[in-house]
Amino acid sequence: MSTNASLDVTQAPRQIRASVLHGAKDLRIENRSIFPPGPTDLQISVRSTGLCGSDLHYYRHYRNGDIVVQEPMSLGHESAGVVVDVGSEVEGFKVGDKVALEVGQPCETCDRCKEGRYNICKGMRFRSSAKSFPHAQGTLQDRINHPAAWSHKLPEDVSLDLGALLEPLGVAIQASKRAQLVPGATVLVFGAGAVGLLVAAMAKISGAGIVVIADIDEGRVNFAVENKFAHQKYTVPMKRGATIEEQLDIAKETAAAIGKITKESGSEIGEVDAVFECTGVPSCVQASIYATRPGGKMLLIGMGTPIQTLPISAAALREVDIMGVFRYANTYPTGIEVMSKKGPDYPDFGKLVTHRYTGLESAVEAFDMAGKTKDDKGNLVIKVVLETGEEKSNL
Amino acid sequence: MSTNASLDVTQAPRQIRASVLHGAKDLRIENRSIFPPGPTDLQISVRSTGLCGSDLHYYRHYRNGDIVVQEPMSLGHESAGVVVDVGSEVEGFKVGDKVALEVGQPCETCDRCKEGRYNICKGMRFRSSAKSFPHAQGTLQDRINHPAAWSHKLPEDVSLDLGALLEPLGVAIQASKRAQLVPGATVLVFGAGAVGLLVAAMAKISGAGIVVIADIDEGRVNFAVENKFAHQKYTVPMKRGATIEEQLDIAKETAAAIGKITKESGSEIGEVDAVFECTGVPSCVQASIYATRPGGKMLLIGMGTPIQTLPISAAALREVDIMGVFRYANTYPTGIEVMSKKGPDYPDFGKLVTHRYTGLESAVEAFDMAGKTKDDKGNLVIKVVLETGEEKSNL
Amino acid sequence: MSTNASLDVTQAPRQIRASVLHGAKDLRIENRSIFPPGPTDLQISVRSTGLCGSDLHYYRHYRNGDIVVQEPMSLGHESAGVVVDVGSEVEGFKVGDKVALEVGQPCETCDRCKEGRYNICKGMRFRSSAKSFPHAQGTLQDRINHPAAWSHKLPEDVSLDLGALLEPLGVAIQASKRAQLVPGATVLVFGAGAVGLLVAAMAKISGAGIVVIADIDEGRVNFAVENKFAHQKYTVPMKRGATIEEQLDIAKETAAAIGKITKESGSEIGEVDAVFECTGVPSCVQASIYATRPGGKMLLIGMGTPIQTLPISAAALREVDIMGVFRYANTYPTGIEVMSKKGPDYPDFGKLVTHRYTGLESAVEAFDMAGKTKDDKGNLVIKVVLETGEEKSNL
Amino acid sequence: MSTNASLDVTQAPRQIRASVLHGAKDLRIENRSIFPPGPTDLQISVRSTGLCGSDLHYYRHYRNGDIVVQEPMSLGHESAGVVVDVGSEVEGFKVGDKVALEVGQPCETCDRCKEGRYNICKGMRFRSSAKSFPHAQGTLQDRINHPAAWSHKLPEDVSLDLGALLEPLGVAIQASKRAQLVPGATVLVFGAGAVGLLVAAMAKISGAGIVVIADIDEGRVNFAVENKFAHQKYTVPMKRGATIEEQLDIAKETAAAIGKITKESGSEIGEVDAVFECTGVPSCVQASIYATRPGGKMLLIGMGTPIQTLPISAAALREVDIMGVFRYANTYPTGIEVMSKKGPDYPDFGKLVTHRYTGLESAVEAFDMAGKTKDDKGNLVIKVVLETGEEKSNL
Repeated sequence: MSTNASLDVTQAPRQIRASVLHGAKDLRIENRSIFPPGPTDLQISVRSTGLCGSDLHYYRHYRNGDIVVQEPMSLGHESAGVVVDVGSEVEGFKVGDKVALEVGQPCETCDRCKEGRYNICKGMRFRSSAKSFPHAQGTLQDRINHPAAWSHKLPEDVSLDLGALLEPLGVAIQASKRAQLVPGATVLVFGAGAVGLLVAAMAKISGAGIVVIADIDEGRVNFAVENKFAHQKYTVPMKRGATIEEQLDIAKETAAAIGKITKESGSEIGEVDAVFECTGVPSCVQASIYATRPGGKMLLIGMGTPIQTLPISAAALREVDIMGVFRYANTYPTGIEVMSKKGPDYPDFGKLVTHRYTGLESAVEAFDMAGKTKDDKGNLVIKVVLETGEEKSNL
Repeated sequence: MSTNASLDVTQAPRQIRASVLHGAKDLRIENRSIFPPGPTDLQISVRSTGLCGSDLHYYRHYRNGDIVVQEPMSLGHESAGVVVDVGSEVEGFKVGDKVALEVGQPCETCDRCKEGRYNICKGMRFRSSAKSFPHAQGTLQDRINHPAAWSHKLPEDVSLDLGALLEPLGVAIQASKRAQLVPGATVLVFGAGAVGLLVAAMAKISGAGIVVIADIDEGRVNFAVENKFAHQKYTVPMKRGATIEEQLDIAKETAAAIGKITKESGSEIGEVDAVFECTGVPSCVQASIYATRPGGKMLLIGMGTPIQTLPISAAALREVDIMGVFRYANTYPTGIEVMSKKGPDYPDFGKLVTHRYTGLESAVEAFDMAGKTKDDKGNLVIKVVLETGEEKSNL
Repeated sequence: MSTNASLDVTQAPRQIRASVLHGAKDLRIENRSIFPPGPTDLQISVRSTGLCGSDLHYYRHYRNGDIVVQEPMSLGHESAGVVVDVGSEVEGFKVGDKVALEVGQPCETCDRCKEGRYNICKGMRFRSSAKSFPHAQGTLQDRINHPAAWSHKLPEDVSLDLGALLEPLGVAIQASKRAQLVPGATVLVFGAGAVGLLVAAMAKISGAGIVVIADIDEGRVNFAVENKFAHQKYTVPMKRGATIEEQLDIAKETAAAIGKITKESGSEIGEVDAVFECTGVPSCVQASIYATRPGGKMLLIGMGTPIQTLPISAAALREVDIMGVFRYANTYPTGIEVMSKKGPDYPDFGKLVTHRYTGLESAVEAFDMAGKTKDDKGNLVIKVVLETGEEKSNL
Repeated sequence: MSTNASLDVTQAPRQIRASVLHGAKDLRIENRSIFPPGPTDLQISVRSTGLCGSDLHYYRHYRNGDIVVQEPMSLGHESAGVVVDVGSEVEGFKVGDKVALEVGQPCETCDRCKEGRYNICKGMRFRSSAKSFPHAQGTLQDRINHPAAWSHKLPEDVSLDLGALLEPLGVAIQASKRAQLVPGATVLVFGAGAVGLLVAAMAKISGAGIVVIADIDEGRVNFAVENKFAHQKYTVPMKRGATIEEQLDIAKETAAAIGKITKESGSEIGEVDAVFECTGVPSCVQASIYATRPGGKMLLIGMGTPIQTLPISAAALREVDIMGVFRYANTYPTGIEVMSKKGPDYPDFGKLVTHRYTGLESAVEAFDMAGKTKDDKGNLVIKVVLETGEEKSNL
């Protein structure tokens, strides 16, 4: 996100291609010019980009909730690539290094930035988000210049796909850190999409004794347990109440069903120490409040209904803390450690990439798939990755 | 709360009088027998009891929200008195000592108790609460036997009234500890009743740089600032929206008005680090969410509407933590330190007792006054104290 | 630790045998009377007791550092057994239950107890410690009465040996909790005895990315890595400096060597986030200070030289916190979860019991073995367990 | 600390005067050129600089402990001044603004910086410290260019002297934050120099119930109590032991004497929750360990003897945490709030400036005074300020 001022304008710019969104479902491939990287930047050939729910919102509606796109914008922010040029003042990187991009650039001067919570910096410029203007362009481009300070070198044994997954994993690590889980904790995760699965995995890796994952889709919770993302599963039945009282009764039933599972799994009295809510759906948020033990924590991760009717006293009177998780700060080094590991009991992160497309021109196809929960063959759609690169990479 | 087993039944019981609630507004004075204190108990002549909102609910409705009274019960749990008998194994107390009663007795064996959060113990037996059965009888009695371990000796310079106020002050200390305020923090308190005033005072004493107190009653916020409970005040205008969107707009206006005050008071950008919500009213809870800065804390202290419609994303996306405060744990020693201090800039805690009645037979009158916001002369009603004692005490 | 007052004296006492220490190396088997359990107690047939360093000190010297034994005392505090009788008011236990004993009984009334840090209660009575008087007798007895509140039921799949190991594991959990490890942390453990191994295992289970264990004995660090207690190992060379400056230079070399290992293991710049010092040896404490990164934590677990010469500025100027770990509080539920798990990558806790003796009369032999680092065949001595029981148990 | 690259070299540099240290006690006034401020910098006319112990070390020895000066260096880092020019991209500052300088500039890219603990950044460049090379020049110059992001605007009612004091106050705030004091805490401060007094004041302002200040100089502890920096005082007797055991006995006596004071001041059992050690003298560090209650915190603030012999078990076995405090991070906004306040019970921060000199040419005289504990008239020397400015300022 270097300004022109710091670019080396003595060299001619290079022509690259970018996938650019011009309106709802209006994704075009365009040529752009890219100057050599500024003194503290890297130039990165983008290779792997995971598609995220917010990208999908922009793609479909040219807006994401209240945030409206104001100028053509490239999507993509879960990305890894290969260094192709190194700014004059950069140390520690060389051409050919595999890197993951941390795509949010905070102001670095506000109180939040200085205290290390840059994820909630009001001046944040985040690639492929239309919140700041001019928009910080997303990664669905052949190459981008990106600050070396916000690039993270990947070890040999971490693939570019796993490098791209570091972005949603960052959310999971942020959640895990905010929850301050103690070893042996009993954990419930609502939602078995990519984020929910990563959150469950992080809780498990962080020493949680019992991790239960809950979703309305039985296939997803089966996937979670089979691939070592969680210990136990619960398929939430599809029940809806007409009145708020009925809804809350259903939420209580769900919480009770979870309590039964944790008790059978060895939790002394069936209590849940921390609930990670990754759906944003009111019925799940309600059930999360009921499911959390007195003094436990309830983490709001899923971005869903912005205004909800909640049994707030049921939280307050039991000192259940309701804590938000917004993106991440300082999670990439941890994420790389997590992705580097393997083992028979370890979550198989590679399995999260269920669908893969190649080339910027496949973006529309990829977004269409990312909008589905299952593909035509009935296989789960968890994470769709768009593989790019000027030339075929074998990294 | 000793069992008969541990009482000294070799001595004859003594006859005392108790104020006992038999139904809504059916308060009777009855004779009871009291045995000498058990080995680890004190016998305390109750002298000063503050009336609390929950007492008032029981008095008026023979229930408190969902909790229904199941047998005749004495009210009162904000109390101090004088030791009149000392159990055989008790050390550190003698007849004549002034003591404050910590009236909740947790199970002492569950995980919450063992980790020091006994306020959320599920087995808690709390005097004058009908939640446990048989009910733990309240303090509106001539004398009670109470565990020495849950009695707190008052220094010479702390009056019995201030001793009784240690109970609601405990809530304020609990809130202050949960908020982990840093020195210089900007704080907002919604509600200028007894608890709100104590919460504001504790924030101020804990080093908050700016404490703004907000209430719909101008007299109350004036009281707060004049008596050094808060630095700044805001009178919340009485506006109501028909739709939830209108309500939230009003809540945003309130938050903006507060932001203006904190900015004028020197907070760099008008941000509030912690909001203490002491009303339980949805419009205030909504405004509290908007008023809290990214990464700040919102403490739910007021017991109000149990199910509320809230702009939950406005909290989650800014990592505003919504934390409950339920009673208190380990606050009495701190409270005694706080009450022992005086100074020209120090909150004048004595001023909180605006009305005082003498004798158990004045209980009805006292409860009626406690139900008002102003007395007949237009004076604020903040805390009503019922002074008791078998004989006139001059302590 | 019930007093006679609460025992059921209407029943005749039962005769049991106890191993009792009367002086240095003067261990005698004596008959004792045991009454039926008090109302809140269990009577437990002790089955498995691990021998600990403090037991060994008492056995050898009839003292432990400054603490001198003042009356004949049974040793043993790492114990599990089987319930043989249940007090009249006890719920949740029945005859035949396997239980681990948490042998320290705090006062439950001081500020530390009430805030959940009962391990540092000044009134603590800890079995087989001569600090309180009359001494709380250790577990090397056929049966003991023990409060149900301090007994922890073991699941089917946790053996009595693992139940006994919950005591030293408690120290490891306490250390892990105090360290507030974040997932992916780089950890160094000095000392590969039973406690060091358990500490390493807990760090690993809690999500540490790299756990290096260091010891002067190559066999021990090999054991640690082979049995999945740690990821990496370092054999500390035996070097001694004559002057403090020389000693500190050696400590710096050790820290540098560790840094090299962590860097090669993937820690970005070879930094250690937390060091767990389990030897108490000054050279290791010094190296621990140097090895900890700025802002990291150094946990003192090993009880060793009480007065040490340390490079204190090297800690202070880098905000390296030096934190003590003394026994444990609230760790047994977590420990049981930890012991219940198994897996190919999971530490094999059962391997810690390297030597086993049967019957109280084998106590001398067991203590002699516990005092060795290797047995006659050259096998490591890690944990010696004394199996007891009135009759042969097959639990 | 802008590099030449970003300076506006199209404008001619301005000539200013600087006080420059060329060797031990070799302080010369020299002419320097200063370019207009870089785009993100302010140009500040330095007006008030407090002299600090580290400045004094450099002045006397041309080194500070292990850190040797490698090129001529201006001293001074406790400074405030007036904005005289504003960089092109700077917002929120204008010519004439009073500002305090936060003189340490961290790398802003390492893990510590990103997590908000920039005070322990290894790449820190701190004005008037010879640790980084080329040295970051100190503030004893007519004018300096300084990043706007590290300049803090002072409100009208905070004088330039108080602005300069924000630097040592930052250390006190850092200490207070690290200690996580709870309201009503009992606090002991060793050392009543400028830092000790500020530390005591911050503890008091943060709600500590009892703040005892201890020093070997009776005048200093009297000053502390008279000017509302502490509640209680203790004059440490000058006793020295020949052996370490004797020294520790003396330390225990000191701790016991302090315990007596806190007990008489109302602390229930004479315990100290947190000790702030501001002397760096081993006997005080030893006494600090003994004086801290089980589970309490001992903060090392004073930079003194780098290698010390300490009763480390007395800390570890009681879980007394020994925590370093090195400079400060994110303390200026809080400091400005603290300095803005006044009141009859509030510490009188202005009194800390006991001696004042005017003009760079008075630097030698000022340093000589800063090296004394009392002046020729017997008045305490606490903080010596050097007032500077190209022209006489009446701000």
